This record gives sequence, structure tokens and C-alpha cells, in this order.
Amino acid sequence: MNSAVISSSDPSLPLAEIQAGLDPLIAITKAGMQATNAIIVARMQSEIDLIPTLASHLIAAGGKRMRPMLTLAGASLAGASQNQMDNAARLAASVEFIHTATLLHDDVIDESDMRRGNKTASAIWGNEASVLVGDFLFARAFELMVETGEITVLGRLAAAAARITEGEIAQMLLAGNPGAARADYFRVIEAKTAELFAAAAETGAMIGGADKALSDDMRSYGMALGIAFQITDDALDYAASSDDMGKAVGDDFKEGKITLPVILAWQDGDEAERSFWRKCLQEGEIGDSDLQEALAILEKHNAITRSLAEARQHAEAAAALAQTWPFLSNGTAEALVAAARFAAERTL
Amino acid sequence: MNSAVISSSDPSLPLAEIQAGLDPLIAITKAGMQATNAIIVARMQSEIDLIPTLASHLIAAGGKRMRPMLTLAGASLAGASQNQMDNAARLAASVEFIHTATLLHDDVIDESDMRRGNKTASAIWGNEASVLVGDFLFARAFELMVETGEITVLGRLAAAAARITEGEIAQMLLAGNPGAARADYFRVIEAKTAELFAAAAETGAMIGGADKALSDDMRSYGMALGIAFQITDDALDYAASSDDMGKAVGDDFKEGKITLPVILAWQDGDEAERSFWRKCLQEGEIGDSDLQEALAILEKHNAITRSLAEARQHAEAAAALAQTWPFLSNGTAEALVAAARFAAERTL
Repeated sequence: MNSAVISSSDPSLPLAEIQAGLDPLIAITKAGMQATNAIIVARMQSEIDLIPTLASHLIAAGGKRMRPMLTLAGASLAGASQNQMDNAARLAASVEFIHTATLLHDDVIDESDMRRGNKTASAIWGNEASVLVGDFLFARAFELMVETGEITVLGRLAAAAARITEGEIAQMLLAGNPGAARADYFRVIEAKTAELFAAAAETGAMIGGADKALSDDMRSYGMALGIAFQITDDALDYAASSDDMGKAVGDDFKEGKITLPVILAWQDGDEAERSFWRKCLQEGEIGDSDLQEALAILEKHNAITRSLAEARQHAEAAAALAQTWPFLSNGTAEALVAAARFAAERTL
Repeated sequence: MNSAVISSSDPSLPLAEIQAGLDPLIAITKAGMQATNAIIVARMQSEIDLIPTLASHLIAAGGKRMRPMLTLAGASLAGASQNQMDNAARLAASVEFIHTATLLHDDVIDESDMRRGNKTASAIWGNEASVLVGDFLFARAFELMVETGEITVLGRLAAAAARITEGEIAQMLLAGNPGAARADYFRVIEAKTAELFAAAAETGAMIGGADKALSDDMRSYGMALGIAFQITDDALDYAASSDDMGKAVGDDFKEGKITLPVILAWQDGDEAERSFWRKCLQEGEIGDSDLQEALAILEKHNAITRSLAEARQHAEAAAALAQTWPFLSNGTAEALVAAARFAAERTL
């Protein structure tokens, strides 16, 4: 696909032809991400050396930085001026700081030792440091937002931050209840994961000068992509090897987390299977062979495959939205279609 | 003292006559605190019931709410309009939310079981819930600040929030080092405690329309009061009964925290005493009679008394600043003098 050939008068994107992938989004946000990464490095500094040491452990470990890229793409799609793109980079750094703060606190909560193939900050520096550096990055995120001078955007991200924590708490309360309703699961993932993708994309568009219709659309796009992203993550937790995900298969199982594959298997399961899920996830009695047993039950009900298919539906909903957007010669809308599909087709 | 008799042409406050106490501040901020408390209750609500349950456990347990009262007094001193006072109440609620979030995270970090005479939230609901509800309140604080529409004020409080976490991390790094310098201790308490008093008072003045001289003064006042407050807290930790403070004598000692009494005793101590401090605070080897031994050494060097005297010096510096402020017929400046003195003369 050569996006440069799509003119602004082209009536529609060649939706079916666009392959899943992050490379187009990486390409169109390259300059903006350089600016964003420079801000990230500059603003995690502190006279307390431990702060940049701990923060950079997590930030340098990578991750795909999809959220800040969505912010930049949103601004680009809105036809941002250079000054607006500078502000979009500040906002993109804020979004990444909020995400990083959430990960630091998650690792404390989950008592995780590994993330993205590395030891977690809490495993190396302890819970105290992880909680506090998370708080620091969260505060820094708001300082950066203040520097954009855009208080409406700030309000959106503050509301998103509150909703993310509500989602995390709801997830905590759902743990151990394998008979949970699908609606409960979706409420959790919309809040804890998709909300930040949605707010990242929406506020990028806002700061780039988009009208309400386009920024609302970007929000819906980010929400659908985020849902696809989390369902895929939850499905891969029962399928990926430690090398792929940087964590072991079955982490969610061991923590009693209730995710879509389990909900699907529970709904189609017989009483013996439900007893098994209750024993493992509710009572936390997990024997040596129970993960294998869980995988066999999930396989029997096609629960992983069906979960991934649901993820693809949400990704396609995001892609369909992107198809309606202004066609820029740099291929922003096409890149957003490819990114949405990527969210549902990551490594298995 | 009848503040109503002090006219606006009165050349100076009767500084020497004003008694330490919070009652005058409580009286002049009564209407504002009613508005503030209503906002606090309304804005800690969530569809996740655990959030208001956990937050109100801590918020209802009381505390003196000095920080939000300082915000309101700052606005009042600046001659705030009714509209500005409404915004000051939002800001005061934000300040209390930031403070509460910090306490929730502190209790996780300190693994404290008791605060203000009650079980801590982390002891009742676990660390996960305390971390997440702290995050929620922090996000809500920024939402409230956004509603004031005052982005400059928001920037000040975001910077304060970052500095508070730097102070907490610095305190963590100082733990176990009884030979720490006074300057290290003051750097910690200025950041972790006094900064929020300073920002609370300053932003109250700002939102009330104060000029830079007055808001800078309010900041200095809050900083000095906050330093007095924390030194007093640290001294009382070696002196108060559990009933007074809601925690046991010697908590800081058991946690290896380095506070002014220990620094003073270390500086004047002989080698045997320094070995004792090292054994207890650095190596964490605390025997049954070691707290008694520590109290005896502190007594020998008058370390508690001298710490409290230092606290009073800072309180008097705050009081002296307040003396220079506009004399309102409701007695705001006098109330701030009394409050500064109260910070250094709390229950022993």
C-alpha cells in the first residue's frame, strides 16, 4: 500500500486491503514520537536519582507506545499546526506517564515479578518505591498537561485517570468469580484499558483543533481499539509463551482474574467444569496439573479462538470508523486502520 | 481576643497576645468548610461502592483539615468574591483529596495498622484497594481543579504533588541512616509535608485574586507552618501516648525513620550512643528495652524539647508574616497567627 497515492478526494480507504500492523503508525508519528520521547526523558528527571532510575527501567523496556502514537495521530488527523503538534507531544508524554504510573501500581497490586520479559520495578526496588514513583509520574503528567494551556483536554484526561482506577478496582472485586457476566468483564476492560486509548486519541484530536464530531469519533476509535487490545491480551495469557509476552502462560489463572475466555468456558461448561473453575479461581486451590486442565477446557469450548474473534470485531469497528476520516497524503487514517487490526492480531 | 474590634486601619496585630489554637481559623472558615465538605462527600462517590466506603473511612476519621482551611483563609485574605470563594472550596476539596491519597499510600508503604486511633484502610481492605482508591482521589482532585478553570493554580498543585512524592522517596532513602545531616531532614519535611501546606495557602490566595506579593507570602507562611507541624509530629512520636496520636510511641523508631530528635541526639552523642542508634535504626535490631533506652538518650540530650523549640521558631516565622497582612474585620490574619502557633503546640 502506498498511502501517498490516496488523494484527499478519494471517496474511501481500501479497507479490505490494509494489513494489520503498527509500522504505518510508527512511520507517520516518527517526528512526533522523537519529540515525545525527549519530553519523557527530560521530565522523569528529579534530584532524587531513584526516580529516573526506576522510571526508565520500565519506560526503556519498551512497550509499543501505542497510546502516545494515537495522541499524535489524532492531532495530525485534525490538521494540527506546528505549535499544536508541540502541544500534542506534551500530551503524548503525559499519556505515557499515566500509563507507566498505572503499570507501576499494577505490579505492586499483582505482586508480579516479571513484565515484558524483565523483572518488575517492585521486584527490584520494592513496593514503596514503585507506589511513589508511580505517584510522581502521575503528578508530572498533570504538570505537562498544564503546559499545553488546554484545560478542557486536562479535564478529559483527569476524568480518564479516575475511570481507570475505577476499572482496576472493579477488576479486583471481580476476581475469584468465574460466573461473572460478560457485561461485568466489559465494564472492567473499558475502564481499566480502553479508556486511556480513547482519551489519548480524543485529546490528540482536540489539541490538534478537531471539531467535536472528529474528536468524538477518535474517542470511539480508541475505545474499540482498546477493547480489542485487552481481549487479545487476556486470550494470549492462556496461549502465549513466556518469550512472547514477557510473562508466563496462565498468570491470570493463578491470580484468579476473570477474563473473557473463562467467562465463555463457564457459560458453556457443565457442572463438573464449573466446580473446577470455582475450586481454582474462587478458592485459589490450584494444583500442579490444573493449568493444563484449564487449557483443555478452554480448548474444548474454543474459548481462546472465540475471544480472539470478538477482539477482531472490535478492531474492525475501529477500522470502519477510521475509514470515514479525512484522507491525508501521509496516510494517517490508513495507519489507524492498520493499528486497530494490529490490536487484535498480536503475536500468538 | 475579639477580632471584630481590630479595624482595617489598625497598624499591627497584637502578635504577643494571640494564643495558639485552631478555633479562630475554624470560625472564620466555617461557611467555606461546609461547602468544601459537601464537595468532598459528593466527589468521592463512584459506582464502585468500595471507593466511597474506603475513602470515607479515612476522611470521616477526621484529622483537623488544616490544609483546606488554609486555602479558604488565603482566598478570604485576598478579598475573594462569592464566585471566587466557590472556586476556593473546590480547591480546598482538591487539597484534602491529595492529602488523603498521600495518607492511603503512606499506610501501604509503612505497613501501618493504625492511624488517628483507627485501623488503617490497608489493614481493613488490603494494599491493592488502598493504592487504587488513593489514585482515584488524586485523579478526582485534578478534575475538581479543572472545574475552577484556573490553570495556573492547577500547575502549582501539580508541581506540589510531584514534590510531595519526591519528599516521600527521599524519606525512604534516608531511613536507617541516623547520622544524616539536618539539611537532609529539612529537605524531606519541606517536600513531603510543608509543600502541601504552602501550595494550599498560596493557591487559595491566588484563586481569591491576591497579587503576587500576597500569594508568595501565603506560600512562605504555609511552608513555615508545615515545617513546624512536621517537626512537632516527629517529636511527639517519641512522647505521645497512643490515645493522643492514634498511634503508638516509637513508631518512627521501629520503622528506622530518621527525624530531628534522633539527628540532634546523634550529633551530641558519644560513640556508644551512636552504636546504639546504628544497631536499632540501621540494622533494625530492636530489642524489647531499646525504645526505653532511646527515650532515655533523647531525654539526656533534651532532643525532644529542643525539637519542639525549633518547631516554635518556624511557627513564629509564619506568625510574623501573618502580622503584615491586611486586617479583615473577620480576623483572618489573627486566625492564621493562632493556627501557626497551634502547629507547634499540639498535644503532648
